[in-house]
Amino acid sequence: MAEFDVLVLGAGSGGYACALRAAQLGLSVGLVEKGKVGGTCLHVGCIPTKALLHAAEIADGARDAERFGVRASLDGIDMAGVNAYKDGVVSRLFKGLTGLVRSRGVTVVEGEGRVTGPREVTVGGEVHTGRHLVLATGSYPRTLPGLDVDGERVLTSDDALRLDRVPASVVVLGGGVIGCEFASVWRSFGAEVTVLEALPRLVPGEDEASSKALERAFTKRGITVRTGTPFQSVKTTDDGVAVTVEGGEVIEAELMLVAVGRGPVTDGLGFEHTGVTTDRGFVSVDDRCRTGAEGVYAVGDIVPGLQLAHRGFQHGILVAEHIAGLDPRPVPESAVPRVTYSHPEVASVGLTEAAAVEAHGADAVESLTYDLGGNGKSQILQTQGFVKLVRLVDGPVVGVHLVGERVGELIGEAQLIYGWEAHPDDVTPYVHAHPTQHEALGEAHLALAGKPLHAHS
Amino acid sequence: MAEFDVLVLGAGSGGYACALRAAQLGLSVGLVEKGKVGGTCLHVGCIPTKALLHAAEIADGARDAERFGVRASLDGIDMAGVNAYKDGVVSRLFKGLTGLVRSRGVTVVEGEGRVTGPREVTVGGEVHTGRHLVLATGSYPRTLPGLDVDGERVLTSDDALRLDRVPASVVVLGGGVIGCEFASVWRSFGAEVTVLEALPRLVPGEDEASSKALERAFTKRGITVRTGTPFQSVKTTDDGVAVTVEGGEVIEAELMLVAVGRGPVTDGLGFEHTGVTTDRGFVSVDDRCRTGAEGVYAVGDIVPGLQLAHRGFQHGILVAEHIAGLDPRPVPESAVPRVTYSHPEVASVGLTEAAAVEAHGADAVESLTYDLGGNGKSQILQTQGFVKLVRLVDGPVVGVHLVGERVGELIGEAQLIYGWEAHPDDVTPYVHAHPTQHEALGEAHLALAGKPLHAHS
Repeated sequence: MAEFDVLVLGAGSGGYACALRAAQLGLSVGLVEKGKVGGTCLHVGCIPTKALLHAAEIADGARDAERFGVRASLDGIDMAGVNAYKDGVVSRLFKGLTGLVRSRGVTVVEGEGRVTGPREVTVGGEVHTGRHLVLATGSYPRTLPGLDVDGERVLTSDDALRLDRVPASVVVLGGGVIGCEFASVWRSFGAEVTVLEALPRLVPGEDEASSKALERAFTKRGITVRTGTPFQSVKTTDDGVAVTVEGGEVIEAELMLVAVGRGPVTDGLGFEHTGVTTDRGFVSVDDRCRTGAEGVYAVGDIVPGLQLAHRGFQHGILVAEHIAGLDPRPVPESAVPRVTYSHPEVASVGLTEAAAVEAHGADAVESLTYDLGGNGKSQILQTQGFVKLVRLVDGPVVGVHLVGERVGELIGEAQLIYGWEAHPDDVTPYVHAHPTQHEALGEAHLALAGKPLHAHS
Repeated sequence: MAEFDVLVLGAGSGGYACALRAAQLGLSVGLVEKGKVGGTCLHVGCIPTKALLHAAEIADGARDAERFGVRASLDGIDMAGVNAYKDGVVSRLFKGLTGLVRSRGVTVVEGEGRVTGPREVTVGGEVHTGRHLVLATGSYPRTLPGLDVDGERVLTSDDALRLDRVPASVVVLGGGVIGCEFASVWRSFGAEVTVLEALPRLVPGEDEASSKALERAFTKRGITVRTGTPFQSVKTTDDGVAVTVEGGEVIEAELMLVAVGRGPVTDGLGFEHTGVTTDRGFVSVDDRCRTGAEGVYAVGDIVPGLQLAHRGFQHGILVAEHIAGLDPRPVPESAVPRVTYSHPEVASVGLTEAAAVEAHGADAVESLTYDLGGNGKSQILQTQGFVKLVRLVDGPVVGVHLVGERVGELIGEAQLIYGWEAHPDDVTPYVHAHPTQHEALGEAHLALAGKPLHAHS
């Protein structure tokens, strides 16, 4: 039995960030993990999917090389090679992370932990307690009632990452971030891809303009996008799956990916012993990730809201600093940047135009869209898309929305503009480097301030 | 004879930006141009070189495809195809720009203008005057005394952009931004490349750490980097050039590119009629681009300092707003971001560590380097490099220095941090999107604030 200042259940993004920061602040930390330190993000989430997306970019580059005067041809995808590359990136980062955890003096407790008391976790019969308990158990790929995931024909994203071949055809069930990223990869790898989404648009959490632009780009790439098309059932056939959608139409494919969101891993873990409140499996917290139960916190994907690794980092750091008696500044959920790393990318921070109008009224909100057609670097990359800014009239920028190849990198600047509540005129004196893509962000602010440079007024 | 509110001599970045903004502010504008609206940047500078660099990236992608599991091969470079792509980008942007200039009601005067009075320009015998005169005549590729550029074997960057083949071997004279970009392109296209630089390091305007990292990366790519090696002479041979460096060593190659900087185009243009002061050909101005001669301004590359298109934009906008009676905020030269778009890229804003130490004293300055080895997205891109921050002790960040593939896009965020005089703690609450490259900027700020996340403390 060990007693820690901070006992963390789960070593994914939220859990390990909390452990690292707490240790740095001089607290003793126990970090319980049944799988590998790094969790979903590092092993079956952010990192491996982005590696696939980069291999996809390389494939697209070779396929379209002639357009740039480069004599090259794409002869196929060697999935064993792709996986070796992907796994190599993951192992290198894993090695770095485990070294970091060790060097900070965090005690890693390997094994499946179950909460057995208010601030107590039992792992393989051994009881660990903490002055503070941080729940960081993460999420799992959800499925739908009656939908049987067999891991062979009907896959979760976990299964899809282990696939040893490029399917000839695939139905992606769900047009959210994960579905769109896999659809993009498989299309680049040469598969016939159909995305089914029950809601009227792809990436429904994004601004409507972004959804439309992504749908247009996907369609142009030969991805079949079926929005407003609820799934009904799937059955496996001799050579794949037959997917029936509402209305009775049947779509056949070699595989189906189920990408209908991620649920919280909180069931059967003894959370009831802590006194925390859950709502449909998610743990309720305040803006400092306090659960209401004395000394018990929850971070990351089990907290209702955006399920993103960097939100987990933010939660974890905040909790560690709070426990250490610092007074960390909580950041509103809307300041957490969102990126869909498909080709093209979609990225945003702050409010969608619709949300801004709902919050402030239509008269108080204005928006401006700068087309990447006027952006030199985007022309060089031969990508289409836009920068859309949402602002309060005579007030700060409250939303930034981006579509286009590589625009995810622009959200770094955008998140400071949003976080610092900048007005367009705070940005405009700083003319952006030419020719870059982030120059489009500068141009959009110039235009919003009434002084467009490379845009019609 | 026409009298304008604002008469602009030269329609490059500085000139056309001034014309566009002045017209927007209700002023009548004459814009004199002997070549094409858009100037060096659009026609023989930023845009075409970045198109070459993107074709180079595509070529590298195909060459290294196997590393990512993609079956592709690079079979060569079709320079006619590369040039068609490059010229296509330029024409599309040129079309957009001329449309914009027209729609804003700017009067374009085609022909070679010469200053013939205090605020008077004569073009083909016709005299134009302005209440205000803006000199924006730009720059030309310099050569060295006794070095004969023939456009066939010994080239300027203008010639290099028209080249119809990939040279087997090339000597690049000058390891500044332009030299490094061309060296990078040609190496990606398969040439043997030697860079000669008299100074002890490449991109000598950058922080020393950046120069070293670029030299290391270039060497790894098989580019021969010869710093501290002054050029002595060149002669053309039967099949190329023989370049003699100080000490007598001779380097043979098919071509030599002269990239020893750009000089101001101010000679023989009648500037003496305006009363402006020049220093080695550059026009002296104050921080509002005023020359000291009543109503006469100078913008862009003829003003001593960084010769960058976006600095020209900034100058041009500032002058237009000043003439219109607004009170524009001048931005210090150090806030102008610098990007070398080679593979890898080098980017910076603010002060180098050496300059910060010189300005503030060694005790007042600290620096922190975050290695991209810890950055997931950089690992995915398989690029090496760093984020280096320079700050005043307990004070703001005064310099940001970046090396790595694609890091030029990160300078957008960095320039706001610098421009807004942010302290590391102003940045740290905004945890950056994972996995992106700009996350490394966030991590560096966390580390600088004493709370590194993915880095050893």
